[in-house]
Amino acid sequence: MEFEERTSKINYIYKGKILSLRRDDITLPDGKDAVREIVEHSGGSTVLCVKDGKVLLVKQFRYAYKEVIWELPAGKLNAGEDPKETALRELEEECGIKASRIEKLFDVYPTPGYTNEIIRIYRAYDLVETNVHLDEDEFLLSEWVEIDRVKDMIKNGEIKDGKTLIALLYFFANEK
Amino acid sequence: MEFEERTSKINYIYKGKILSLRRDDITLPDGKDAVREIVEHSGGSTVLCVKDGKVLLVKQFRYAYKEVIWELPAGKLNAGEDPKETALRELEEECGIKASRIEKLFDVYPTPGYTNEIIRIYRAYDLVETNVHLDEDEFLLSEWVEIDRVKDMIKNGEIKDGKTLIALLYFFANEK
Repeated sequence: MEFEERTSKINYIYKGKILSLRRDDITLPDGKDAVREIVEHSGGSTVLCVKDGKVLLVKQFRYAYKEVIWELPAGKLNAGEDPKETALRELEEECGIKASRIEKLFDVYPTPGYTNEIIRIYRAYDLVETNVHLDEDEFLLSEWVEIDRVKDMIKNGEIKDGKTLIALLYFFANEK
Repeated sequence: MEFEERTSKINYIYKGKILSLRRDDITLPDGKDAVREIVEHSGGSTVLCVKDGKVLLVKQFRYAYKEVIWELPAGKLNAGEDPKETALRELEEECGIKASRIEKLFDVYPTPGYTNEIIRIYRAYDLVETNVHLDEDEFLLSEWVEIDRVKDMIKNGEIKDGKTLIALLYFFANEK
């Protein structure tokens, strides 16, 4: 089976601060014309920290859902930034934790039907406490949560964020 | 800590076929003004099928990444459609499988920084083979893949789709 969809014309609808939107004219594998609505995003990094039987989570308001949700510490890549540096920077800014070792777990395509975002999931080790310093427009709280409580939060649907579910379920699937 | 971001003005930039884009004026918890770029999406359903030591996966080209990727069968909610019906409909359309029992595993927020999409993850049981009938602009192949091979695909980064990772890692974390 032939799968590839070829670009006929790239059309930018919006170029914004955290995302841009295109509505491209494409050619389907059978030669017919179609359009694809694509969100461009520079990608993000997120980081799993486990220490003394607890997981580091952050609680923040997400305007898209008008809800406070639980997530791993995470953030958007700055221009030209190594995703590993993003993970370490966000961990320090949001939670006041410095890690001296970091390991890549996954590259995730969060919703491949319309966005090109890649979310890198890391696990961090050798954690040292330092100071939280949030961005000016950032309002969030970090908390070390007991592993058993985290398992309950997954079971009862309290944790909804995709990257956070992947990192935690991976950790539980591989727990010794 | 006060978290809530209040809407000052909703501004539509684009209303499309699979998504719409807003650039809302908001008020931050500290009273300052900001903007939020939000993608509106009607949501989707995906479905995990495991039978005879194999998992049902689909392979399709995702234009946003210009790549053929592996996913669970999935699709976008039609207007007014019950997410459970979406899951059953897509399973039959994409893979030619009719399920008579379905169980909700998760509601996932795939990338909460900018989209309001909710992806429902189901597990389907009591599977019967029927006929594949793809949409006109849909080019994909479904395949039953051995569980050990799926575990390798996760380990070596061959499976990148977020919803698929969540469903599979959940299954492996709870495997008896």
